[in-house]
Amino acid sequence: MNKPLFALLATSMCINSYAQQATPYEPIVNSDNTVTFNFKAPQAKKVELVSDFLKVQEMSRNSEGTWTFTTPKLPSELYKYYFNVDGTATLDVGNIYRIRDGGSIMNYFLVGGGQGDFYKVNDVKHGTVAKVWYYSPIVGKNRRMTVYTPAGYESGKGKYPVLYLLHGSGGDENAWPELGRAAQIIDNLIAQGKAKPMIVVIPNGNVDQQAAPGEGAIGLVSPDMPLPHSMEGSFESSFSDITTFVNKTYRTIKKKDSRAIAGLSMGGYHSLYISANNPDDYGYVGLFSAAVWPESKNDSPIYVDLKGKLKTQFSKGVKLYWIGIGKDDFLQNENKDLRKILDGQGDKYTYFESGGGHMWANWRLYLTQFLPLLFK
Amino acid sequence: MNKPLFALLATSMCINSYAQQATPYEPIVNSDNTVTFNFKAPQAKKVELVSDFLKVQEMSRNSEGTWTFTTPKLPSELYKYYFNVDGTATLDVGNIYRIRDGGSIMNYFLVGGGQGDFYKVNDVKHGTVAKVWYYSPIVGKNRRMTVYTPAGYESGKGKYPVLYLLHGSGGDENAWPELGRAAQIIDNLIAQGKAKPMIVVIPNGNVDQQAAPGEGAIGLVSPDMPLPHSMEGSFESSFSDITTFVNKTYRTIKKKDSRAIAGLSMGGYHSLYISANNPDDYGYVGLFSAAVWPESKNDSPIYVDLKGKLKTQFSKGVKLYWIGIGKDDFLQNENKDLRKILDGQGDKYTYFESGGGHMWANWRLYLTQFLPLLFK
Repeated sequence: MNKPLFALLATSMCINSYAQQATPYEPIVNSDNTVTFNFKAPQAKKVELVSDFLKVQEMSRNSEGTWTFTTPKLPSELYKYYFNVDGTATLDVGNIYRIRDGGSIMNYFLVGGGQGDFYKVNDVKHGTVAKVWYYSPIVGKNRRMTVYTPAGYESGKGKYPVLYLLHGSGGDENAWPELGRAAQIIDNLIAQGKAKPMIVVIPNGNVDQQAAPGEGAIGLVSPDMPLPHSMEGSFESSFSDITTFVNKTYRTIKKKDSRAIAGLSMGGYHSLYISANNPDDYGYVGLFSAAVWPESKNDSPIYVDLKGKLKTQFSKGVKLYWIGIGKDDFLQNENKDLRKILDGQGDKYTYFESGGGHMWANWRLYLTQFLPLLFK
Repeated sequence: MNKPLFALLATSMCINSYAQQATPYEPIVNSDNTVTFNFKAPQAKKVELVSDFLKVQEMSRNSEGTWTFTTPKLPSELYKYYFNVDGTATLDVGNIYRIRDGGSIMNYFLVGGGQGDFYKVNDVKHGTVAKVWYYSPIVGKNRRMTVYTPAGYESGKGKYPVLYLLHGSGGDENAWPELGRAAQIIDNLIAQGKAKPMIVVIPNGNVDQQAAPGEGAIGLVSPDMPLPHSMEGSFESSFSDITTFVNKTYRTIKKKDSRAIAGLSMGGYHSLYISANNPDDYGYVGLFSAAVWPESKNDSPIYVDLKGKLKTQFSKGVKLYWIGIGKDDFLQNENKDLRKILDGQGDKYTYFESGGGHMWANWRLYLTQFLPLLFK
């Protein structure tokens, strides 16, 4: 088909000046893993690159009004950024790849050649990623979850182990699949023979929400953050609605040693308390930069006597209790307190300390570390 | 949880100045269906609203540097827009709802109280929307499709009719689910008893692509449009790989009268030729603003003797042959030519003419009109 005809057929004809204005795809990941940004804004006085990999960088204007900046060599990773144009936050028109993190949207790109390769869609067999609704009688709502079923699930008859993978505050059932690159990580680890095929269930941990913003009946409103009731026992108390639905709907192996629960930040808090309150249910537990608060003053029965509950949980047997946190994470002390409790009781756990703080680069890394240890 | 703690837990901590800068959710749909836009850009000299519902509108600056504009009353619909800030296309930082249309991304919002209500997530039973991979031996690629299974499918054992729903040029397996609001439309029509529960298969019609941009092994590159080989017979020739996979993987009713095919623009072209070349397969055909070209010079056997093939198709029986197009669509003449052929042969079809041209507002409307007619 010729170009002019395509222009007619292209679906965004009503407002196509935008597309015409777009610069070629940016940023350019150069062969040495430096990255070049270009942004056309001829009338701007100042354009800055704001990112999660460098301090705010002032860009340089060329004679045609395009602002440019090239980074030093970047480690292999998924990175987010936006531009500040005369003080107004602006996304990169040339880069269609954008990702929502809580209430903000940023552009992103991937630098390969290392850890970032786990985050790529490689030409391997892919699992199915489904947005699935269930009714939660305890919450009294239709709610949404993301379910990953491994390649071969739909065409086969076998049963699979299950990982429940929980998001942090500000997240929802889209956070692990999008920011977390969970499907890519699992696909790649299974394809490399490093992880067992498994079902991964990613529920929405905010009981006040049916679904991610825009996906529930509340409509296209801005999420009110923090969402209430997310860390007061309601989610943990209604978790059996999720496991009941999953066991009824999917071909799961209904055994403790074929069931794992893990989460980041608030999801680590949920994982800690759900597994401690249900010591017969989870053979594998992963706490990623977990919000712990073992001295929690919250009076929900879910949070009462964590120490005693952990003692029972470990006495009944846990195949793997995995704690990962960054050196600079603001939750380091709380995690030290938790480890002191476990050490004091002689409970065996695996501790993984990374660089950096409370950030997605770490949570993607922890998932990559954690998955190969499951269901062995 | 208190606000400062949330701020620490929120996941976008590395670059949170963006979130802090965000104005409250915009645009505001007022009770009279006028819509107010606000955009903060104190240093800008000129800010324009560019949209699919009004000509380019210059916005007014208030004393604090926020630019505003209120529309006249808008009909109930889903609308797209962006801002031009001193000539640079900019998305609305305050509105997290964005949608990709081919190679551009725009903000969107919904005005209810009419047709737009079909596009809302209402609190009804929802089907599952899954991203599913299959291997296409004819194309020689792992490829991705979107599959909608109606509420009750996963927990039941029944078989369902299937609609194959095809996208236009510049689209992919994400176009109908996103811009097309297909899952919302089907959920709402089924919940109202207006459409039969059905499986909807939304494949990727670009044989040069594995999947939508960013979802295939080619990586985070900008889609090269137009994609080659999309209208030269390859997709139509490999369509049996899709139906074979679907019939093997899902509980489908394997009968002509339980099978429909419909598409918009290029997808209408695909639907026309796939159904004409397989006269025993599709009881229902929908052509939405179809790219027709009955005089096509393309020498693929798929396109040879359309007239004769249509004659055979209609002689074998078609429960519904539905043609929808807008008054101002640039493909009006081609569709008139097709209707002349059908009229000349005495072939019965349903013709639906809307206002407007080649645009998503029409394709969403056509889907809403078409679905209730299926599988009766």
